[in-house]
Amino acid sequence: MPHLSVVGIGIGNPEHLTLEAVRALRDADVLFAVDKGDGRDGLMAVRKAVCDRALGDRPYRLVAIPEVPRDRAPKDYDAAVREWHAARAEAYADAFAREIGEGARGAFLVWGDPALYDSTLRILDRIADQGRIPLTYEVLPGISSVQLLAARHRTVLNGIGEAVHVTTGRRLLKRPEAAQSGSTVVMLDGAPEAVFAALDPDLAIYWGAYLGSADEMLVAGRLGDVASEILRLRRTGRAQHGWIMDIYLLRGVSELA
Amino acid sequence: MPHLSVVGIGIGNPEHLTLEAVRALRDADVLFAVDKGDGRDGLMAVRKAVCDRALGDRPYRLVAIPEVPRDRAPKDYDAAVREWHAARAEAYADAFAREIGEGARGAFLVWGDPALYDSTLRILDRIADQGRIPLTYEVLPGISSVQLLAARHRTVLNGIGEAVHVTTGRRLLKRPEAAQSGSTVVMLDGAPEAVFAALDPDLAIYWGAYLGSADEMLVAGRLGDVASEILRLRRTGRAQHGWIMDIYLLRGVSELA
Ligand SMILES: C[S@@+](CC[C@H](N)C(=O)[O-])C[C@H]1O[C@@H](n2cnc3c(N)ncnc32)[C@H](O)[C@@H]1O
Ligand SMILES: C[S@@+](CC[C@H](N)C(=O)[O-])C[C@H]1O[C@@H](n2cnc3c(N)ncnc32)[C@H](O)[C@@H]1O
Repeated sequence: MPHLSVVGIGIGNPEHLTLEAVRALRDADVLFAVDKGDGRDGLMAVRKAVCDRALGDRPYRLVAIPEVPRDRAPKDYDAAVREWHAARAEAYADAFAREIGEGARGAFLVWGDPALYDSTLRILDRIADQGRIPLTYEVLPGISSVQLLAARHRTVLNGIGEAVHVTTGRRLLKRPEAAQSGSTVVMLDGAPEAVFAALDPDLAIYWGAYLGSADEMLVAGRLGDVASEILRLRRTGRAQHGWIMDIYLLRGVSELA
Repeated sequence: MPHLSVVGIGIGNPEHLTLEAVRALRDADVLFAVDKGDGRDGLMAVRKAVCDRALGDRPYRLVAIPEVPRDRAPKDYDAAVREWHAARAEAYADAFAREIGEGARGAFLVWGDPALYDSTLRILDRIADQGRIPLTYEVLPGISSVQLLAARHRTVLNGIGEAVHVTTGRRLLKRPEAAQSGSTVVMLDGAPEAVFAALDPDLAIYWGAYLGSADEMLVAGRLGDVASEILRLRRTGRAQHGWIMDIYLLRGVSELA
Protein backbone atom coordinates (compact mmCIF):
# COMPACT_ATOMS: atom_id res chain seq x y z
CA MET A 1 0.00 0.00 0.00
CA PRO A 2 1.38 3.46 -0.77
CA HIS A 3 2.42 5.47 2.29
CA LEU A 4 2.32 9.22 2.72
CA SER A 5 4.17 11.37 5.27
CA VAL A 6 2.48 14.69 5.91
CA VAL A 7 5.48 16.88 6.68
CA GLY A 8 5.28 20.19 8.51
CA ILE A 9 8.06 22.20 6.83
CA GLY A 10 8.04 25.34 8.96
CA ILE A 11 7.09 28.72 7.56
CA GLY A 12 9.91 29.80 5.31
CA ASN A 13 13.28 29.00 6.86
CA PRO A 14 14.57 25.59 5.71
CA GLU A 15 16.66 25.44 8.91
CA HIS A 16 13.38 24.92 10.79
CA LEU A 17 12.99 21.45 9.29
CA THR A 18 13.20 18.75 11.92
CA LEU A 19 15.61 15.86 11.48
CA GLU A 20 12.70 13.46 10.97
CA ALA A 21 11.21 15.76 8.34
CA VAL A 22 14.53 15.78 6.48
CA ARG A 23 14.56 12.01 6.55
CA ALA A 24 10.95 11.74 5.35
CA LEU A 25 11.71 14.02 2.41
CA ARG A 26 14.80 11.97 1.57
CA ASP A 27 12.97 8.65 1.83
CA ALA A 28 10.08 9.75 -0.36
CA ASP A 29 9.80 8.64 -3.96
CA VAL A 30 7.67 11.67 -4.76
CA LEU A 31 6.96 14.98 -3.04
CA PHE A 32 3.64 16.85 -3.15
CA ALA A 33 2.80 20.47 -2.49
CA VAL A 34 -0.31 22.47 -3.14
CA ASP A 35 0.18 25.29 -5.61
CA LYS A 36 -2.18 28.07 -4.59
CA GLY A 37 -1.51 29.79 -7.88
CA ASP A 38 -2.49 33.10 -6.35
CA GLY A 39 0.64 34.92 -7.37
CA ARG A 40 2.45 33.84 -4.26
CA ASP A 41 5.26 32.41 -6.36
CA GLY A 42 7.57 33.11 -3.47
CA LEU A 43 5.86 30.39 -1.46
CA MET A 44 6.45 27.71 -4.09
CA ALA A 45 10.07 28.90 -4.22
CA VAL A 46 10.33 28.41 -0.45
CA ARG A 47 9.05 24.86 -0.81
CA LYS A 48 11.75 24.21 -3.40
CA ALA A 49 14.37 25.73 -1.09
CA VAL A 50 13.17 23.40 1.67
CA CYS A 51 13.49 20.37 -0.63
CA ASP A 52 16.93 21.49 -1.77
CA ARG A 53 18.03 21.86 1.84
CA ALA A 54 16.74 18.38 2.75
CA LEU A 55 17.86 16.57 -0.37
CA GLY A 56 21.08 18.35 -1.27
CA ASP A 57 22.25 17.18 -4.69
CA ARG A 58 19.85 14.27 -4.98
CA PRO A 59 17.32 14.65 -7.77
CA TYR A 60 13.71 14.71 -6.59
CA ARG A 61 10.25 14.88 -8.08
CA LEU A 62 8.02 17.65 -6.68
CA VAL A 63 4.42 17.40 -7.88
CA ALA A 64 2.43 20.62 -7.52
CA ILE A 65 -1.27 19.91 -6.95
CA PRO A 66 -3.13 22.92 -8.34
CA GLU A 67 -5.45 24.45 -5.75
CA VAL A 68 -9.17 24.02 -6.41
CA PRO A 69 -10.74 27.48 -6.81
CA ARG A 70 -12.79 28.64 -3.86
CA ASP A 71 -15.82 30.85 -3.38
CA ARG A 72 -14.35 33.71 -1.36
CA ALA A 73 -17.66 35.33 -0.40
CA PRO A 74 -20.04 32.41 0.13
CA LYS A 75 -23.53 32.77 1.63
CA ASP A 76 -23.00 29.74 3.88
CA TYR A 77 -19.35 29.74 4.98
CA ASP A 78 -19.27 26.26 6.52
CA ALA A 79 -21.09 24.61 3.61
CA ALA A 80 -18.82 26.29 1.10
CA VAL A 81 -15.72 25.11 2.97
CA ARG A 82 -17.10 21.58 3.05
CA GLU A 83 -17.80 21.52 -0.69
CA TRP A 84 -14.38 22.91 -1.35
CA HIS A 85 -12.79 20.17 0.76
CA ALA A 86 -14.74 17.53 -1.19
CA ALA A 87 -13.41 18.84 -4.49
CA ARG A 88 -9.91 18.97 -3.10
CA ALA A 89 -10.18 15.39 -1.81
CA GLU A 90 -10.90 14.32 -5.40
CA ALA A 91 -7.93 16.25 -6.74
CA TYR A 92 -5.53 14.95 -4.08
CA ALA A 93 -6.68 11.34 -4.42
CA ASP A 94 -6.20 11.56 -8.18
CA ALA A 95 -2.69 12.91 -7.74
CA PHE A 96 -1.76 10.20 -5.23
CA ALA A 97 -3.20 7.43 -7.42
CA ARG A 98 -1.29 8.77 -10.42
CA GLU A 99 2.03 9.59 -8.77
CA ILE A 100 2.68 7.15 -5.90
CA GLY A 101 3.41 3.68 -7.19
CA GLU A 102 2.58 0.38 -5.51
CA GLY A 103 4.52 0.17 -2.22
CA ALA A 104 6.08 3.59 -2.79
CA ARG A 105 6.35 6.51 -0.35
CA GLY A 106 5.16 10.04 -0.82
CA ALA A 107 5.73 13.17 1.28
CA PHE A 108 3.20 15.97 1.42
CA LEU A 109 4.70 19.36 2.28
CA VAL A 110 2.55 21.44 4.63
CA TRP A 111 3.26 25.05 5.57
CA GLY A 112 4.12 25.42 9.26
CA ASP A 113 2.48 22.76 11.40
CA PRO A 114 -0.21 20.52 9.86
CA ALA A 115 -2.38 20.87 13.01
CA LEU A 116 -3.00 24.62 12.73
CA TYR A 117 -5.42 26.13 10.23
CA ASP A 118 -4.51 23.74 7.47
CA SER A 119 -6.94 21.40 5.74
CA THR A 120 -4.55 18.69 4.51
CA LEU A 121 -5.39 16.34 7.39
CA ARG A 122 -9.13 16.80 6.97
CA ILE A 123 -8.77 15.97 3.31
CA LEU A 124 -6.67 12.86 3.94
CA ASP A 125 -9.15 11.76 6.59
CA ARG A 126 -11.90 12.04 4.03
CA ILE A 127 -9.91 10.14 1.39
CA ALA A 128 -9.13 7.37 3.90
CA ASP A 129 -12.78 7.23 5.03
CA GLN A 130 -14.10 6.90 1.53
CA GLY A 131 -11.56 4.20 0.77
CA ARG A 132 -11.31 5.66 -2.72
CA ILE A 133 -7.64 4.78 -2.89
CA PRO A 134 -5.61 2.60 -0.53
CA LEU A 135 -3.26 4.78 1.49
CA THR A 136 -1.63 4.88 4.90
CA TYR A 137 -0.28 8.13 6.30
CA GLU A 138 1.54 9.63 9.24
CA VAL A 139 1.95 13.23 10.39
CA LEU A 140 5.26 14.94 11.24
CA PRO A 141 4.91 18.19 13.20
CA GLY A 142 6.62 21.36 12.00
CA ILE A 143 7.46 24.76 13.44
CA SER A 144 4.36 26.98 13.18
CA SER A 145 3.94 30.71 12.72
CA VAL A 146 2.64 30.93 16.32
CA GLN A 147 5.93 29.56 17.62
CA LEU A 148 8.17 31.67 15.45
CA LEU A 149 6.25 34.80 16.41
CA ALA A 150 6.88 34.07 20.09
CA ALA A 151 10.51 33.08 19.50
CA ARG A 152 11.33 36.24 17.58
CA HIS A 153 9.80 38.38 20.30
CA ARG A 154 11.53 36.18 22.89
CA THR A 155 8.27 35.89 24.77
CA VAL A 156 6.19 33.13 26.33
CA LEU A 157 2.70 32.91 24.86
CA ASN A 158 0.86 32.28 28.13
CA GLY A 159 0.74 34.48 31.20
CA ILE A 160 1.78 32.63 34.36
CA GLY A 161 -0.82 29.90 34.92
CA GLU A 162 -3.03 31.50 32.23
CA ALA A 163 -4.56 30.20 29.01
CA VAL A 164 -3.68 30.98 25.40
CA HIS A 165 -6.37 31.59 22.83
CA VAL A 166 -5.49 31.02 19.18
CA THR A 167 -8.07 32.49 16.84
CA THR A 168 -8.66 34.05 13.43
CA GLY A 169 -9.17 37.66 12.38
CA ARG A 170 -12.68 36.78 11.27
CA ARG A 171 -13.60 35.46 14.72
CA LEU A 172 -11.92 38.29 16.59
CA LEU A 173 -13.97 40.74 14.55
CA LYS A 174 -17.13 39.10 15.90
CA ARG A 175 -16.01 39.20 19.51
CA PRO A 176 -13.26 41.74 20.02
CA GLU A 177 -13.79 41.63 23.79
CA ALA A 178 -12.18 38.17 23.79
CA ALA A 179 -8.77 39.85 23.46
CA GLN A 180 -9.31 41.98 26.52
CA SER A 181 -7.82 39.52 29.00
CA GLY A 182 -5.27 36.74 28.77
CA SER A 183 -3.22 36.01 25.66
CA THR A 184 -4.73 35.88 22.19
CA VAL A 185 -2.88 34.84 19.06
CA VAL A 186 -4.55 36.05 15.87
CA MET A 187 -3.93 34.34 12.54
CA LEU A 188 -5.52 34.81 9.14
CA ASP A 189 -6.33 38.47 9.67
CA GLY A 190 -6.84 39.30 6.02
CA ALA A 191 -8.77 42.53 6.36
CA PRO A 192 -6.91 45.44 4.73
CA GLU A 193 -7.07 47.51 7.89
CA ALA A 194 -6.71 44.47 10.21
CA VAL A 195 -8.91 43.78 13.20
CA PHE A 196 -6.37 44.90 15.82
CA ALA A 197 -6.62 48.51 14.66
CA ALA A 198 -10.04 48.86 16.31
CA LEU A 199 -9.15 47.27 19.67
CA ASP A 200 -8.36 48.75 23.10
CA PRO A 201 -5.19 50.87 22.63
CA ASP A 202 -3.92 49.68 26.02
CA LEU A 203 -3.49 46.09 24.85
CA ALA A 204 0.06 44.92 24.20
CA ILE A 205 0.71 43.62 20.68
CA TYR A 206 3.54 41.46 19.35
CA TRP A 207 3.31 41.45 15.58
CA GLY A 208 5.30 39.63 12.90
CA ALA A 209 5.10 39.33 9.12
CA TYR A 210 6.99 37.16 6.59
CA LEU A 211 8.40 35.33 9.60
CA GLY A 212 11.19 32.92 8.77
CA SER A 213 12.04 34.74 5.55
CA ALA A 214 14.64 37.36 4.74
CA ASP A 215 11.87 39.98 4.73
CA GLU A 216 10.77 39.35 8.31
CA MET A 217 9.12 42.34 10.04
CA LEU A 218 8.59 42.65 13.79
CA VAL A 219 6.86 45.27 15.93
CA ALA A 220 5.93 45.12 19.61
CA GLY A 221 4.47 47.65 22.02
CA ARG A 222 1.33 49.23 23.36
CA LEU A 223 -1.28 48.88 20.63
CA GLY A 224 -2.16 52.57 20.70
CA ASP A 225 1.48 53.47 20.15
CA VAL A 226 2.37 51.02 17.38
CA ALA A 227 -0.85 50.26 15.45
CA SER A 228 -0.26 52.87 12.76
CA GLU A 229 3.32 51.72 12.25
CA ILE A 230 2.10 48.12 11.78
CA LEU A 231 -0.58 49.23 9.32
CA ARG A 232 2.09 51.14 7.39
CA LEU A 233 4.38 48.08 7.28
CA ARG A 234 1.47 45.92 6.12
CA ARG A 235 0.85 48.29 3.22
CA THR A 236 4.55 48.40 2.34
CA GLY A 237 4.77 44.60 2.43
CA ARG A 238 1.67 44.13 0.32
CA ALA A 239 2.91 46.61 -2.26
CA GLN A 240 6.29 44.92 -2.45
CA HIS A 241 5.28 41.23 -2.41
CA GLY A 242 1.71 41.36 -3.69
CA TRP A 243 0.60 39.49 -0.52
CA ILE A 244 1.25 39.41 3.18
CA MET A 245 1.27 36.73 5.87
CA ASP A 246 1.24 38.14 9.34
CA ILE A 247 0.30 37.05 12.82
CA TYR A 248 0.09 38.73 16.21
CA LEU A 249 -0.20 38.11 19.92
CA LEU A 250 -2.40 40.38 22.01
CA ARG A 251 -2.04 40.56 25.75
CA GLY A 252 -4.70 41.93 28.04
CA VAL A 253 -3.78 44.95 30.11
CA SER A 254 -4.05 43.17 33.44
CA GLU A 255 -1.83 40.33 32.32
CA LEU A 256 1.61 39.71 33.80
CA ALA A 257 4.16 40.10 31.01
CA MET B 1 29.54 39.64 25.44
CA PRO B 2 28.50 36.03 26.07
CA HIS B 3 25.62 34.81 23.88
CA LEU B 4 22.96 32.27 24.76
CA SER B 5 20.68 30.31 22.44
CA VAL B 6 17.51 29.12 24.11
CA VAL B 7 16.86 25.90 22.23
CA GLY B 8 13.50 24.15 22.08
CA ILE B 9 14.53 20.48 21.94
CA GLY B 10 11.15 18.82 21.44
CA ILE B 11 9.60 16.53 24.02
CA GLY B 12 11.60 13.34 23.98
CA ASN B 13 12.43 12.29 20.44
CA PRO B 14 15.85 13.64 19.34
CA GLU B 15 14.64 13.41 15.72
CA HIS B 16 12.36 16.36 16.48
CA LEU B 17 15.34 18.70 16.74
CA THR B 18 15.33 21.32 14.02
CA LEU B 19 18.38 21.80 11.83
CA GLU B 20 19.02 25.20 13.43
CA ALA B 21 18.77 23.66 16.91
CA VAL B 22 21.36 21.04 15.95
CA ARG B 23 23.66 23.80 14.76
CA ALA B 24 23.15 25.86 17.92
CA LEU B 25 24.03 22.87 20.08
CA ARG B 26 27.14 22.22 17.97
CA ASP B 27 28.26 25.84 18.03
CA ALA B 28 27.88 26.17 21.79
CA ASP B 29 30.89 26.09 24.09
CA VAL B 30 28.69 24.96 26.95
CA LEU B 31 25.18 23.51 27.25
CA PHE B 32 22.74 24.16 30.10
CA ALA B 33 19.73 22.21 31.29
CA VAL B 34 17.66 22.51 34.42
CA ASP B 35 17.78 19.42 36.59
CA LYS B 36 14.42 19.14 38.29
CA GLY B 37 15.83 16.49 40.58
CA ASP B 38 12.34 15.13 41.17
CA GLY B 39 13.17 11.58 40.31
CA ARG B 40 12.52 12.17 36.67
CA ASP B 41 15.96 10.85 35.77
CA GLY B 42 14.51 9.78 32.48
CA LEU B 43 14.13 13.40 31.48
CA MET B 44 17.80 14.22 32.07
CA ALA B 45 18.63 11.08 30.08
CA VAL B 46 16.51 12.39 27.20
CA ARG B 47 18.42 15.66 27.26
CA LYS B 48 21.67 13.71 26.99
CA ALA B 49 20.25 11.65 24.12
CA VAL B 50 19.34 14.92 22.37
CA CYS B 51 22.89 16.24 22.82
CA ASP B 52 24.36 12.97 21.60
CA ARG B 53 22.16 13.10 18.52
CA ALA B 54 23.16 16.69 17.75
CA LEU B 55 26.85 16.39 18.58
CA GLY B 56 27.65 12.84 17.57
CA ASP B 57 31.15 11.98 18.73
CA ARG B 58 32.18 15.50 19.68
CA PRO B 59 32.79 15.95 23.38
CA TYR B 60 30.49 18.47 25.04
CA ARG B 61 29.99 20.05 28.43
CA LEU B 62 26.42 19.83 29.79
CA VAL B 63 25.92 21.87 32.95
CA ALA B 64 22.88 20.87 35.01
CA ILE B 65 21.43 23.83 36.90
CA PRO B 66 19.74 22.38 39.99
CA GLU B 67 16.10 23.45 40.23
CA VAL B 68 15.29 25.87 43.05
CA PRO B 69 12.79 24.20 45.41
CA ARG B 70 9.24 25.50 45.12
CA ASP B 71 6.33 25.91 47.48
CA ARG B 72 3.79 23.52 45.98
CA ALA B 73 0.80 24.69 48.04
CA PRO B 74 1.28 28.44 48.43
CA LYS B 75 -1.37 30.77 49.86
CA ASP B 76 -0.79 33.30 47.07
CA TYR B 77 -0.06 31.36 43.90
CA ASP B 78 1.09 34.31 41.74
CA ALA B 79 3.33 35.78 44.45
CA ALA B 80 4.91 32.40 45.14
CA VAL B 81 5.64 31.91 41.44
CA ARG B 82 7.21 35.36 41.25
CA GLU B 83 9.48 34.73 44.25
CA TRP B 84 10.45 31.40 42.81
CA HIS B 85 11.36 33.05 39.50
CA ALA B 86 13.52 35.58 41.34
CA ALA B 87 15.49 32.84 43.09
CA ARG B 88 15.87 30.99 39.82
CA ALA B 89 17.11 34.15 38.06
CA GLU B 90 19.90 34.31 40.67
CA ALA B 91 20.82 30.67 40.15
CA TYR B 92 20.80 30.92 36.34
CA ALA B 93 22.79 34.16 36.29
CA ASP B 94 25.40 32.60 38.58
CA ALA B 95 25.69 29.56 36.32
CA PHE B 96 26.05 31.73 33.19
CA ALA B 97 28.66 33.98 34.82
CA ARG B 98 30.65 30.96 35.97
CA GLU B 99 30.36 28.80 32.85
CA ILE B 100 30.19 31.01 29.76
CA GLY B 101 33.51 32.71 29.11
CA GLU B 102 34.08 36.12 27.53
CA GLY B 103 32.78 36.04 23.94
CA ALA B 104 31.71 32.42 24.30
CA ARG B 105 28.36 30.87 23.33
CA GLY B 106 26.01 28.86 25.49
CA ALA B 107 22.90 26.86 24.62
CA PHE B 108 20.03 26.40 27.04
CA LEU B 109 17.97 23.27 26.45
CA VAL B 110 14.24 23.77 26.92
CA TRP B 111 11.66 20.98 26.87
CA GLY B 112 9.30 21.28 23.91
CA ASP B 113 8.83 24.86 22.78
CA PRO B 114 10.15 27.69 24.97
CA ALA B 115 6.94 29.71 24.40
CA LEU B 116 4.55 27.27 26.11
CA TYR B 117 4.32 26.93 29.89
CA ASP B 118 8.03 27.30 30.44
CA SER B 119 9.64 30.00 32.56
CA THR B 120 13.10 30.14 30.98
CA LEU B 121 12.29 33.20 28.88
CA ARG B 122 10.75 35.06 31.82
CA ILE B 123 13.89 34.37 33.82
CA LEU B 124 16.23 35.52 31.05
CA ASP B 125 14.11 38.63 30.59
CA ARG B 126 14.56 39.37 34.26
CA ILE B 127 18.32 38.76 34.16
CA ALA B 128 18.64 41.03 31.12
CA ASP B 129 16.48 43.71 32.75
CA GLN B 130 18.50 43.74 35.91
CA GLY B 131 21.72 43.92 33.93
CA ARG B 132 23.29 41.68 36.56
CA ILE B 133 25.44 40.02 33.94
CA PRO B 134 26.03 41.05 30.33
CA LEU B 135 24.25 38.60 28.03
CA THR B 136 22.57 38.52 24.66
CA TYR B 137 20.18 35.74 23.77
CA GLU B 138 18.01 34.37 20.98
CA VAL B 139 15.17 31.83 20.99
CA LEU B 140 14.90 28.80 18.70
CA PRO B 141 11.44 27.22 18.56
CA GLY B 142 10.98 23.49 19.16
CA ILE B 143 8.26 20.92 18.62
CA SER B 144 5.80 21.15 21.53
CA SER B 145 3.62 18.55 23.24
CA VAL B 146 0.55 20.24 21.73
CA GLN B 147 1.85 19.61 18.24
CA LEU B 148 2.93 16.04 18.83
CA LEU B 149 -0.44 15.22 20.39
CA ALA B 150 -2.20 16.45 17.26
CA ALA B 151 0.29 14.77 14.92
CA ARG B 152 -0.05 11.38 16.60
CA HIS B 153 -3.82 11.58 16.41
CA ARG B 154 -3.50 12.87 12.85
CA THR B 155 -5.91 15.65 13.67
CA VAL B 156 -6.11 19.41 13.20
CA LEU B 157 -6.41 21.30 16.49
CA ASN B 158 -8.96 23.85 15.31
CA GLY B 159 -12.43 23.23 13.96
CA ILE B 160 -12.99 24.87 10.56
CA GLY B 161 -12.73 28.62 11.11
CA GLU B 162 -12.82 28.02 14.90
CA ALA B 163 -10.47 28.97 17.75
CA VAL B 164 -8.17 26.79 19.84
CA HIS B 165 -7.92 27.25 23.56
CA VAL B 166 -4.75 26.05 25.29
CA THR B 167 -5.14 25.88 29.04
CA THR B 168 -4.05 24.10 32.22
CA GLY B 169 -5.79 21.47 34.33
CA ARG B 170 -5.94 23.98 37.19
CA ARG B 171 -7.82 26.52 35.06
CA LEU B 172 -10.13 23.96 33.50
CA LEU B 173 -11.11 22.84 36.97
CA LYS B 174 -12.30 26.39 37.71
CA ARG B 175 -14.33 26.69 34.52
CA PRO B 176 -15.11 23.27 33.09
CA GLU B 177 -17.82 24.79 30.86
CA ALA B 178 -15.00 26.31 28.75
CA ALA B 179 -14.43 22.89 27.19
CA GLN B 180 -18.03 22.58 26.09
CA SER B 181 -17.55 24.19 22.69
CA GLY B 182 -14.65 24.57 20.31
CA SER B 183 -11.27 22.93 20.82
CA THR B 184 -9.47 22.93 24.15
CA VAL B 185 -5.96 21.62 24.74
CA VAL B 186 -5.25 20.84 28.39
CA MET B 187 -1.70 20.73 29.73
CA LEU B 188 -0.35 20.35 33.25
CA ASP B 189 -3.30 18.34 34.50
CA GLY B 190 -1.57 16.96 37.56
CA ALA B 191 -4.59 15.90 39.59
CA PRO B 192 -4.54 12.15 40.27
CA GLU B 193 -8.01 11.67 38.86
CA ALA B 194 -7.55 14.35 36.15
CA VAL B 195 -10.02 17.11 35.39
CA PHE B 196 -11.42 15.49 32.24
CA ALA B 197 -12.99 12.67 34.26
CA ALA B 198 -15.71 15.02 35.53
CA LEU B 199 -16.62 16.60 32.19
CA ASP B 200 -19.52 16.04 29.77
CA PRO B 201 -19.23 12.41 28.57
CA ASP B 202 -20.24 13.48 25.07
CA LEU B 203 -17.08 15.50 24.54
CA ALA B 204 -14.46 13.97 22.24
CA ILE B 205 -11.03 13.48 23.81
CA TYR B 206 -7.64 12.91 22.17
CA TRP B 207 -5.18 11.96 24.88
CA GLY B 208 -1.44 11.28 24.83
CA ALA B 209 1.21 10.48 27.45
CA TYR B 210 5.01 10.16 27.24
CA LEU B 211 4.69 11.51 23.71
CA GLY B 212 7.88 11.29 21.69
CA SER B 213 9.27 8.50 23.85
CA ALA B 214 9.25 4.73 23.40
CA ASP B 215 6.51 4.55 26.06
CA GLU B 216 4.03 6.73 24.18
CA MET B 217 0.35 6.08 25.01
CA LEU B 218 -2.58 7.29 22.90
CA VAL B 219 -6.33 7.08 23.39
CA ALA B 220 -9.09 8.85 21.46
CA GLY B 221 -12.85 8.62 21.57
CA ARG B 222 -16.04 9.79 23.22
CA LEU B 223 -15.05 10.86 26.73
CA GLY B 224 -17.74 8.73 28.37
CA ASP B 225 -16.43 5.66 26.56
CA VAL B 226 -12.70 6.08 27.12
CA ALA B 227 -12.24 8.05 30.38
CA SER B 228 -11.81 5.01 32.58
CA GLU B 229 -9.28 3.47 30.17
CA ILE B 230 -7.25 6.72 30.25
CA LEU B 231 -7.37 6.83 34.05
CA ARG B 232 -6.16 3.23 34.12
CA LEU B 233 -3.27 4.01 31.75
CA ARG B 234 -2.34 7.05 33.85
CA ARG B 235 -2.10 4.84 36.94
CA THR B 236 -0.07 2.20 35.08
CA GLY B 237 2.30 4.88 33.74
CA ARG B 238 2.74 6.52 37.13
CA ALA B 239 3.44 3.17 38.78
CA GLN B 240 6.00 2.27 36.14
CA HIS B 241 7.85 5.59 35.69
CA GLY B 242 7.16 7.32 39.01
CA TRP B 243 5.76 10.31 37.06
CA ILE B 244 3.57 11.06 34.09
CA MET B 245 3.43 13.78 31.46
CA ASP B 246 0.20 13.80 29.55
CA ILE B 247 -1.84 16.21 27.49
CA TYR B 248 -5.24 16.11 25.82
CA LEU B 249 -7.46 17.84 23.32
CA LEU B 250 -11.19 18.16 24.04
CA ARG B 251 -13.66 18.89 21.31
CA GLY B 252 -17.12 20.22 21.97
CA VAL B 253 -19.99 18.07 20.80
CA SER B 254 -21.27 20.52 18.22
CA GLU B 255 -17.84 20.90 16.65
CA LEU B 256 -17.07 19.67 13.16
CA ALA B 257 -14.42 16.97 13.46
C1 LIG C 1 -3.70 28.95 6.59
S1 LIG C 1 -2.82 29.44 8.04
C2 LIG C 1 -1.57 28.21 8.10
C3 LIG C 1 -0.80 28.21 9.39
C4 LIG C 1 0.34 27.20 9.40
N1 LIG C 1 -0.15 25.82 9.33
C5 LIG C 1 1.22 27.38 10.63
O1 LIG C 1 1.50 26.38 11.31
O2 LIG C 1 1.68 28.51 10.87
C6 LIG C 1 -2.00 30.90 7.44
C7 LIG C 1 -1.79 31.94 8.51
O3 LIG C 1 -0.63 31.59 9.29
C8 LIG C 1 0.12 32.73 9.61
N2 LIG C 1 1.44 32.62 8.96
C9 LIG C 1 1.85 31.58 8.20
N3 LIG C 1 3.11 31.79 7.77
C10 LIG C 1 3.49 32.99 8.26
C11 LIG C 1 4.68 33.74 8.18
N4 LIG C 1 5.74 33.31 7.48
N5 LIG C 1 4.74 34.93 8.85
C12 LIG C 1 3.69 35.37 9.56
N6 LIG C 1 2.53 34.69 9.65
C13 LIG C 1 2.44 33.51 9.02
C14 LIG C 1 -0.67 33.93 9.12
O4 LIG C 1 -1.50 34.38 10.17
C15 LIG C 1 -1.49 33.33 8.00
O5 LIG C 1 -2.67 34.07 7.79
C1 LIG D 1 5.72 22.74 32.03
S1 LIG D 1 4.80 22.26 30.62
C2 LIG D 1 6.04 22.40 29.35
C3 LIG D 1 5.49 22.32 27.96
C4 LIG D 1 6.57 22.33 26.90
N1 LIG D 1 7.26 23.61 26.85
C5 LIG D 1 6.00 22.01 25.53
O1 LIG D 1 6.26 22.74 24.57
O2 LIG D 1 5.32 20.99 25.40
C6 LIG D 1 4.64 20.52 30.89
C7 LIG D 1 3.36 19.95 30.31
O3 LIG D 1 3.53 19.73 28.92
C8 LIG D 1 2.91 18.52 28.53
N2 LIG D 1 3.98 17.60 28.06
C9 LIG D 1 5.29 17.86 27.99
N3 LIG D 1 5.95 16.81 27.51
C10 LIG D 1 5.05 15.85 27.25
C11 LIG D 1 5.11 14.53 26.73
N4 LIG D 1 6.28 13.99 26.37
N5 LIG D 1 3.95 13.83 26.60
C12 LIG D 1 2.77 14.37 26.95
N6 LIG D 1 2.66 15.61 27.45
C13 LIG D 1 3.78 16.35 27.60
C14 LIG D 1 2.18 17.98 29.74
O4 LIG D 1 0.85 18.47 29.72
C15 LIG D 1 2.96 18.59 30.88
O5 LIG D 1 2.17 18.73 32.03
